[in-house]
Amino acid sequence: MKSLFTNIMKGFEGYTIGKLFKYLKDPAIISFAGGLPSSDVFPGDLVRNAVEKSLEQDPDRVLQYTSIPGEEDLMEAVVDYLKKDNVHIEPENIVITTSGQQGIDLVGRLFLEPKDIIVTDLPTFGGALASFEMGGAQYLAEDIEEDGSDVRGFEEGIENLIPEGRKPKFIYVVPDFQNPSGITTSLEKRLALLSLSKRYRIPLVEDSPYRELRYRGQHIPSIYSLDKNQGNVIGIFTFSKILCPGVRVGFNIGPPEVIDKFSSIKGANTLCTPKLNQDICTAFLREYDLDAHFRRIRDYYREKLNFFLEAMEENFTTDMGVEWTKPDGGLFLWITVPEDINTSELFFMAIEEKVAFVPGEACYPKGHLRHNTMRINFSYPTKDEIIEGVRRLSTVIKKYQVKRSKSLTR
Amino acid sequence: MKSLFTNIMKGFEGYTIGKLFKYLKDPAIISFAGGLPSSDVFPGDLVRNAVEKSLEQDPDRVLQYTSIPGEEDLMEAVVDYLKKDNVHIEPENIVITTSGQQGIDLVGRLFLEPKDIIVTDLPTFGGALASFEMGGAQYLAEDIEEDGSDVRGFEEGIENLIPEGRKPKFIYVVPDFQNPSGITTSLEKRLALLSLSKRYRIPLVEDSPYRELRYRGQHIPSIYSLDKNQGNVIGIFTFSKILCPGVRVGFNIGPPEVIDKFSSIKGANTLCTPKLNQDICTAFLREYDLDAHFRRIRDYYREKLNFFLEAMEENFTTDMGVEWTKPDGGLFLWITVPEDINTSELFFMAIEEKVAFVPGEACYPKGHLRHNTMRINFSYPTKDEIIEGVRRLSTVIKKYQVKRSKSLTR
Repeated sequence: MKSLFTNIMKGFEGYTIGKLFKYLKDPAIISFAGGLPSSDVFPGDLVRNAVEKSLEQDPDRVLQYTSIPGEEDLMEAVVDYLKKDNVHIEPENIVITTSGQQGIDLVGRLFLEPKDIIVTDLPTFGGALASFEMGGAQYLAEDIEEDGSDVRGFEEGIENLIPEGRKPKFIYVVPDFQNPSGITTSLEKRLALLSLSKRYRIPLVEDSPYRELRYRGQHIPSIYSLDKNQGNVIGIFTFSKILCPGVRVGFNIGPPEVIDKFSSIKGANTLCTPKLNQDICTAFLREYDLDAHFRRIRDYYREKLNFFLEAMEENFTTDMGVEWTKPDGGLFLWITVPEDINTSELFFMAIEEKVAFVPGEACYPKGHLRHNTMRINFSYPTKDEIIEGVRRLSTVIKKYQVKRSKSLTR
Repeated sequence: MKSLFTNIMKGFEGYTIGKLFKYLKDPAIISFAGGLPSSDVFPGDLVRNAVEKSLEQDPDRVLQYTSIPGEEDLMEAVVDYLKKDNVHIEPENIVITTSGQQGIDLVGRLFLEPKDIIVTDLPTFGGALASFEMGGAQYLAEDIEEDGSDVRGFEEGIENLIPEGRKPKFIYVVPDFQNPSGITTSLEKRLALLSLSKRYRIPLVEDSPYRELRYRGQHIPSIYSLDKNQGNVIGIFTFSKILCPGVRVGFNIGPPEVIDKFSSIKGANTLCTPKLNQDICTAFLREYDLDAHFRRIRDYYREKLNFFLEAMEENFTTDMGVEWTKPDGGLFLWITVPEDINTSELFFMAIEEKVAFVPGEACYPKGHLRHNTMRINFSYPTKDEIIEGVRRLSTVIKKYQVKRSKSLTR
């Protein structure tokens, strides 16, 4: 049947990070590759109680089809939850999704015709790239800077594209502790992105999976909250990082005419999100001590991050030419190695050395690849694994360089 | 942002049946509109026990991200389950989906470029039409006959399309107790469909949500089981009708190269299916007395169907010119009213009379609409509701005809 696949699908390989995991089955491998939050901070009791209550109170509705846009009580709970973050919306601004990945996919399906252009950072979230690839996306992409997107670069690019009749369809950013770089966009740049979005009438898609996971420094307003007339920004949220990924629930927020279309698409691609899973999220927002929970998560991840950064300092001496970001939150940091190192090759040497990471390639759109970067997850491994894993990582980089200099002198 | 939507999305209204439900909020309305299985036959205890066990045995994995194609133990259970139906496959032939609707959507995304042609019956499942519309599908569609698809009509149509370089991308059928018509495709026609698929090398998509729900007559082999070399058929299954819709789990089966692409698409559109929900399905297949369960469901629905058919006989006298199918299983039957009745208009009169159905329009592709048909769900209403609802339905049809003849004589 292969010859009948669409042209895009013939070459489509999906979420490449997901495909790495087959190499990681050996339990001796210390993996910095996943995007996994740690199960140490999952509120197991909350989930158990919520499930029990949900099945007891309204079993018939729980087991039946439910409303496409989502359960009303979860939407109301989301409205209240976002108020604390200065986002003031109504249920008509919300569609419950079957995870943030579906939230991203809804955006692609609503806006993208083949060869349409998306404005984004280099690097950016690989899962978004995979989804947008299905829509045939092309990119106006600029290197992310220490304080976030290169907004001037975006503007120049847009100015060049408009005369060609190729105005981008939307801007996609992860302003808080970006996956994969860990970089946070400054307030100044958030305002600049919003102003860019308004000036050129290009919707801004703000993906916020890690927003609650700040370990140091000041909270910065979301771009959605800065958009006072609420017509330019689409927000993508998930319960994966604040509650647990297994629940597979998230939500998109935005103008009603956009949310309404998202619901129509959702109705035709998964119909509805399971009520049992939505009920867990409602209980989480309504009945759990969120402040205490977030404090616990933040303390836990902060310690791991600090631990990781210390291990990096110890193992990577300046002469190695290795650089890394020092995130204020989230789950990832980003390592740049000398340009002669191809991290996709390094990956397989690392597997032999029993340590794993995500080769940076997975985080660049086609045509914008860089070969000397890697994404590191610090939230999942234990402290001992971090110490040993970073040591192995430095060893393997040294080996690669020795091997390479040998092959060059031969 | 509306002006930036894709051309298809600008006019996209989603799953139109889903949008009817806002008219049905008045509890006095007797609804034959839903596609709802009855909660009377949901195995609540099984679900409760499975959830408890799953959260107890392996909470960390349940709450974490899991494998994109699906849980291995569920796949193994599906392999064994399908053996009883003479389908012999391996886990590599399976992708677990977040419901049958996702299963259908995966097919559309893999095969459809705008204006590609799908071969299907008139009428056909509205949810499939909604999903395929997102891919810009066009149709070679022929009136379904008493014993299933008009295979000769399909063949003639294909012969006409091939010289134009427009060979259809796939054939989509629901051979068992079709939604919406309730019609079952005969063995002869199943073999003819398979032979058509092989001869023209057009994949056949067999959607089987109701297959277990046979209330009378002989079990007929699935087209998948008839395809001995297993290269032509893609099977779509869901737990919605055999267990419960709220679980939102289904599976697609097919050749490994197709299943592998489905997984890639799934990874980029919802990532993974919640393990908790998959564990419920595994327990259902492994630990539940399926024979007794299916016997119970069949007895329950058979009684309702017979009841409904009797009520139709009583209320619709021959002179009214109303015809209806007498299904051997499934959840639906199909009513054809005289040609001067537009059931989309009738719907709103029926709402006033406190009875509801699905206007047939929702079950035809654009360009193939018929205005004098309706889909009836007999599985959800109680017996008393069936008696009263059918009475109201006949009343409203008579009223419509009187009103119309008055307006014509005026």
